[in-house]
Amino acid sequence: MEVSNRYIVINTHIEDAPKESHFELKTESFSLEPGSDAVIVKNLYISIDPYQINRMKSFSSSQKAIGFAVPVTVGEVVDGIAVGKVVASRNPKFEKDDLVVGVFTWAEYSLVKEVNIINKLETSEFPLSYHIGVLGFSGLSAYAGFFEVCKPQKGERIFVSAASGSVGSLVGQYAKHLGCYVVGCAGSQKKVALLKEKLGFNDAFNYKEETDLKSTLKRYFPDGIDIYFDNVGADMLEAAVDNMNAFGRVAICGVMAEYTDSGKRAAPEMLNIVYKRITVRGFLAADFMNVFPDFLSKTLDYLRTGKLRALEDISYGVENIPPAFVGLFNGDNIGKKIVKIADD
Amino acid sequence: MEVSNRYIVINTHIEDAPKESHFELKTESFSLEPGSDAVIVKNLYISIDPYQINRMKSFSSSQKAIGFAVPVTVGEVVDGIAVGKVVASRNPKFEKDDLVVGVFTWAEYSLVKEVNIINKLETSEFPLSYHIGVLGFSGLSAYAGFFEVCKPQKGERIFVSAASGSVGSLVGQYAKHLGCYVVGCAGSQKKVALLKEKLGFNDAFNYKEETDLKSTLKRYFPDGIDIYFDNVGADMLEAAVDNMNAFGRVAICGVMAEYTDSGKRAAPEMLNIVYKRITVRGFLAADFMNVFPDFLSKTLDYLRTGKLRALEDISYGVENIPPAFVGLFNGDNIGKKIVKIADD
Repeated sequence: MEVSNRYIVINTHIEDAPKESHFELKTESFSLEPGSDAVIVKNLYISIDPYQINRMKSFSSSQKAIGFAVPVTVGEVVDGIAVGKVVASRNPKFEKDDLVVGVFTWAEYSLVKEVNIINKLETSEFPLSYHIGVLGFSGLSAYAGFFEVCKPQKGERIFVSAASGSVGSLVGQYAKHLGCYVVGCAGSQKKVALLKEKLGFNDAFNYKEETDLKSTLKRYFPDGIDIYFDNVGADMLEAAVDNMNAFGRVAICGVMAEYTDSGKRAAPEMLNIVYKRITVRGFLAADFMNVFPDFLSKTLDYLRTGKLRALEDISYGVENIPPAFVGLFNGDNIGKKIVKIADD
Repeated sequence: MEVSNRYIVINTHIEDAPKESHFELKTESFSLEPGSDAVIVKNLYISIDPYQINRMKSFSSSQKAIGFAVPVTVGEVVDGIAVGKVVASRNPKFEKDDLVVGVFTWAEYSLVKEVNIINKLETSEFPLSYHIGVLGFSGLSAYAGFFEVCKPQKGERIFVSAASGSVGSLVGQYAKHLGCYVVGCAGSQKKVALLKEKLGFNDAFNYKEETDLKSTLKRYFPDGIDIYFDNVGADMLEAAVDNMNAFGRVAICGVMAEYTDSGKRAAPEMLNIVYKRITVRGFLAADFMNVFPDFLSKTLDYLRTGKLRALEDISYGVENIPPAFVGLFNGDNIGKKIVKIADD
């Protein structure tokens, strides 16, 4: 079987904010070579994630030293998490029509090796897209980052940045269900309203309307912050550290405000970190596969009982991956950004 | 009994580097009031610690929010850790000639409440000064900071800054005895030689001779740093984070380079902290009283068998407290800075 494919490449390394002109739509045809043990996956939903920008930078930037984030090569298809359907297989473990989640490509079709398939879905009680969002790494990031990294207690005060994003929106909901006091920040009034009215946050604010984040946080947390779940870094992180209580915990899930501006850095007051005995810890969801069963069980339960809302922001068509990705950095998305490539 | 006393005050708040002119020697006489349950302590050895500078800043600076570090009042005697001898007592728990360690004052004599006495020494196998250094909070900071905060494993690579200081010199020795590879930095060739030749560090360097700390650390740690025990903060902290391995741990014991220059901040690359899953944790020895018995037992054992060297740098006389303190910030001291006030 030969497939005719459209796919996305970067045509240059991207040092600052991404633009659509950094990307190109290309076409190709390919088939399964005899002797191969790969499969061809028809992509259905592709996850669009901010951290990918760090893989698109040139090799000279600091990321090159970090084995985890394999750089994206100019002119070659971008890889990313997706859910798709096997349309051809030379691997005995997979057959036509199997639904699979894995590291595929920004493309209509992906030639996939077994190692890049994370799991096969036997059945899906929820929309397929959930498997790359609330039931996938976004969900695991929120769950493990909150429960395992922050070690929250009922009644503690939690601050979440990028709170209407794929991870932040789930952290806030998990925290509420634990019995915490939760405040989120986001970049528009619409998002703020969503946090307060639909997701049950105790309070929320639009950071773009604030001029002094330290005072803002003091206003929202007169008794201090116990846990800060950080998705943005930079001055928000500094302001949070300034407002933290003794033995406060900061989980660094991402630092989106720093991704597209290498001059932007968080310089938290270290004396605060000493005197308040603050722990700042970076983490990756992939390190917490040991809690995946617990995560899945709790999250499915919350979804079934309507206690958890999975926010999705879906665009359509492979050609719309670049604008979807660029839009992440303009705050266009609400919740998990996904591009739907084809019907199930 | 009335004592005639000489003591040290600050005559102004100190915002940057301390100078001798910020301090004043005053005189007074006092006695135990009837009905009091205090004691009068004749100070023998006084601990001189860099963190005290943060208590001498004006109330408007960020420290004011931190309950732990009670500000020093202009014109009133500075308090600090000391070891002394009871010369008069109205408290039934203490009698004349008891040796006591506690939070006393920068003075020849201190009027002391029971709550400020940390412990009574029944006997002292080692010099009395050890009880405010290697057997006191400096030792506990090193022990708890290294073993409890950093959770080191044999064979790991450890970097210690201010490595010839009261805490750093002990951290390096504990780490060596655990079987770690240890590199320290200090501010002179003499200190570097001491670390390598007397304290058993695997290697050491003079940071004042280095122009690019990131490259320096890469040279000393070609396989990366697993643990950074930070006493200085600022650009050294940034460079260490840059050179850390996955799952690296940073214990922030102090940030001396930032104490006297409020514009100096560490802005570590947060993306490194995420991708390398680094934990940065501030701590205070006082939170680890639960390990004090273990600390004491191991440290006494090391001292008895000659496996641990306690570096002390002793000045004499209450009038020499200000120059001793000022000298800390010029790197004058080697090891624990102590002012001896009187013979035992």
